[in-house]
Amino acid sequence: MRLIQLVILSLCIVLVGNLVTIQAQEKTLEKNLSKDYARVASQIMGAALVEGQAYEKLEHLSDNIGNRLSGSPQLNQAIEWAMETMKADGLENVHSEMAKVPHWVRGQESAEILTPAKHRLTILGLGGTIGTSPEGVTAEVVVVRNFDELDKLGEQVKGKIVLYNSPMRKDLPTGQAYGEAVRYRSIGAVRAAKYGAVAALVRSVTTVSLNTPHTGAMRYEDGVAKIPTAAVTIENAELMQRLFLKGQKITVNLKLGAKTLPDTESANVIGEIRGSEKPEEIILVSGHLDSWDVGTGSNDDGAGCVIAMEAVRTIAKLKLRPKRTIRVVLFTNEENGLYGAFAYRDAHKDKFDKHIVAIEADSGGTRPIGFSFKGSDIGFSLIQEISVLLRNLRSDNVERSQGSPGADISVLVEGGVSGLGLRNDSSHYFDIHHTDADTLDKLDRTDLALNVATMGIMVYVLADMPQSLPR
Amino acid sequence: MRLIQLVILSLCIVLVGNLVTIQAQEKTLEKNLSKDYARVASQIMGAALVEGQAYEKLEHLSDNIGNRLSGSPQLNQAIEWAMETMKADGLENVHSEMAKVPHWVRGQESAEILTPAKHRLTILGLGGTIGTSPEGVTAEVVVVRNFDELDKLGEQVKGKIVLYNSPMRKDLPTGQAYGEAVRYRSIGAVRAAKYGAVAALVRSVTTVSLNTPHTGAMRYEDGVAKIPTAAVTIENAELMQRLFLKGQKITVNLKLGAKTLPDTESANVIGEIRGSEKPEEIILVSGHLDSWDVGTGSNDDGAGCVIAMEAVRTIAKLKLRPKRTIRVVLFTNEENGLYGAFAYRDAHKDKFDKHIVAIEADSGGTRPIGFSFKGSDIGFSLIQEISVLLRNLRSDNVERSQGSPGADISVLVEGGVSGLGLRNDSSHYFDIHHTDADTLDKLDRTDLALNVATMGIMVYVLADMPQSLPR
Repeated sequence: MRLIQLVILSLCIVLVGNLVTIQAQEKTLEKNLSKDYARVASQIMGAALVEGQAYEKLEHLSDNIGNRLSGSPQLNQAIEWAMETMKADGLENVHSEMAKVPHWVRGQESAEILTPAKHRLTILGLGGTIGTSPEGVTAEVVVVRNFDELDKLGEQVKGKIVLYNSPMRKDLPTGQAYGEAVRYRSIGAVRAAKYGAVAALVRSVTTVSLNTPHTGAMRYEDGVAKIPTAAVTIENAELMQRLFLKGQKITVNLKLGAKTLPDTESANVIGEIRGSEKPEEIILVSGHLDSWDVGTGSNDDGAGCVIAMEAVRTIAKLKLRPKRTIRVVLFTNEENGLYGAFAYRDAHKDKFDKHIVAIEADSGGTRPIGFSFKGSDIGFSLIQEISVLLRNLRSDNVERSQGSPGADISVLVEGGVSGLGLRNDSSHYFDIHHTDADTLDKLDRTDLALNVATMGIMVYVLADMPQSLPR
Repeated sequence: MRLIQLVILSLCIVLVGNLVTIQAQEKTLEKNLSKDYARVASQIMGAALVEGQAYEKLEHLSDNIGNRLSGSPQLNQAIEWAMETMKADGLENVHSEMAKVPHWVRGQESAEILTPAKHRLTILGLGGTIGTSPEGVTAEVVVVRNFDELDKLGEQVKGKIVLYNSPMRKDLPTGQAYGEAVRYRSIGAVRAAKYGAVAALVRSVTTVSLNTPHTGAMRYEDGVAKIPTAAVTIENAELMQRLFLKGQKITVNLKLGAKTLPDTESANVIGEIRGSEKPEEIILVSGHLDSWDVGTGSNDDGAGCVIAMEAVRTIAKLKLRPKRTIRVVLFTNEENGLYGAFAYRDAHKDKFDKHIVAIEADSGGTRPIGFSFKGSDIGFSLIQEISVLLRNLRSDNVERSQGSPGADISVLVEGGVSGLGLRNDSSHYFDIHHTDADTLDKLDRTDLALNVATMGIMVYVLADMPQSLPR
């Protein structure tokens, strides 16, 4: 063996040794996290459950402000309230960051079956739809179960109203079932317009209904005619399906007063606990302050906002100052554009390498069941280890996420930041999603406090643990 | 012993002997009923389940006619349809009997919380309410849980809107819970008006809500000011309750376009299978054809109507001709007046002694669970014995009824006629009762057929058994 070979071999041995040491350190770190942070986790848990104000915060947001669509005065009120509240909560660097957002307004709307018998329909225009003339669109209805059926009919739907009657499946996990059914809401108008349809109706995306319409975003496509589109209830969709199957001619009049006004200014609201040792490193925890223009947006996503706010208030109240900076971001315009998230990306893109993890709470405020993670294997192990602290809440179930575990944080996740989403019992989430029934009474005070405790513990450990969560 | 004494004693012995014989005969009759009628019950059961058309009938009534409030063109259509259908079904003596009924129309309506924050309320004016001026009533809201709280406030509600927020209890049998909660709907306006309130709002009578308002009848009292009154949803009631408890001033604007027009002509629809031996004796089987002006009245009481119609059609189809006459009566105006029942009473009062039993189906069309009976002990035993034939359907549970087991038949029951009500699984009946969600999709085709079989067997045996059901 030549000297040079010996030197290289020695270097390799040292390198391998170092790697083994690093891995061992990580293993040790991992194993000790839940032990080392048990005391502080108890403090956070106790404070969240004894002194938590999540319900009161959400009560104010729901009852004294109300629903908060982008462009609405209520969203501006909510932004002001969030700024004031974060300051009062003892957060640092509280400020807003401007975001230009779409300004769509619903206006008056109604629909009616005219033949074969008169039936008033219960509708909600979809977010982004164009309006109709005051006398509305009157046309024959063609009912399809899916895009395949539409494609088979092709030009036969020309001049007609297409009703998509595609039930949300009960035999799939709710998120997956929602994802499948929501396609008709998102792109149903475009697909029908390509064949010359004059309007589109979509069965509400839910498995449960008391004649309950669900709104949500739809989008148009350049070069394809824009046609008015609205959600109908399960009851209305099934009625038209039955009439259609019997070969009866269904005529519907659809009136939508919707308008898209010029883009308007809104803002993300930001507040921090500055880190003691690595203040430039950021643990971002978020929800979105906007909602649809129905109900009071208590579950989507008032709950997520107050969970984030209260998790961080609890840490501040305990005068805990973690090594890294905890940054609360209440995004604007998640529902119909994501322009709050885009504005955050544009303003902070050069600091994405300092964003250690981006967390979002946007699945309501029912019992927390764990987290959804997008990131490295070692990151996943560490999140699992931290979650041992949550085993008595049964909010310790960590799963890997295929895509971003939150809509707003997707801009960060796409930029390489680890993503973490709070998961809740979602068995009834879509029953009230985007409806007038999204109100405070659907939430339990205790469950909300358990969410704050879960989030508070996770955020604090991520912000304070010796090693930054590796990408 | 004198001769006279001996004669009396002998007479007594004969009388007692006869009584014992009658009782023994009744016992025998009772014991044999289910055995003697097993074969014919099998025929009815088989026909109802194989050839039944209850679902198709209800589909037509729901989808091609729609909801049917007294005075509406749809109720007239339903009456015509029922006449034609009964004739086509092979019933005899099909005719209608005129009844003058109230003619209340809803008109446009809306309500909004103006302070402390704007919230659109989801309302249904109560049946019979007066309307407001076009600009509506605008006043402060006082929230009470019950009449005691109202009485304590007394004149303090003068000039205000009283909201009754009295939840329907979940810990009572549904019928009883409904009865307790519905008082606020029925007489809440009168009680509030006595203290000078300018309008009344009532929490919808239900335990479940997706922001779902429930209408229903209310009544005024001579000498008490008539004030407008509407149902709000649980969500809306709880919102106002929270704001009220926090001491915030709630201002509401209530606009009701309701009008009471002059009474109009409607009709009960009647069809028969004439009895072979005692045609003058009547087994009456009924439902009510009218509904509220929401949903399609499929459960209340479209289901009851088609159960009665199909039970009798099945008997006719099998060419069974019982000893007594079976008379189907589809009453009008059960929901807001009971004037169909009153008209029947006025037209047939002199024949009440020939009405052996009056049956009503008015608890929806979900799984049948048995009957509710108002009448003699021996009558009860006989109904129980007939019900043995229904044990495989588990619709064999007969209970005693305190009052009349049906609203329409109450006029007969008060006239001494035995009353019988079909009972259904009512666990979700009030979820959709008097709402836009009372639609066909809430009913299962099989359950509907099981109702027809249950009713058909009960009706046939009552009409054909050797002895008339004793009063």
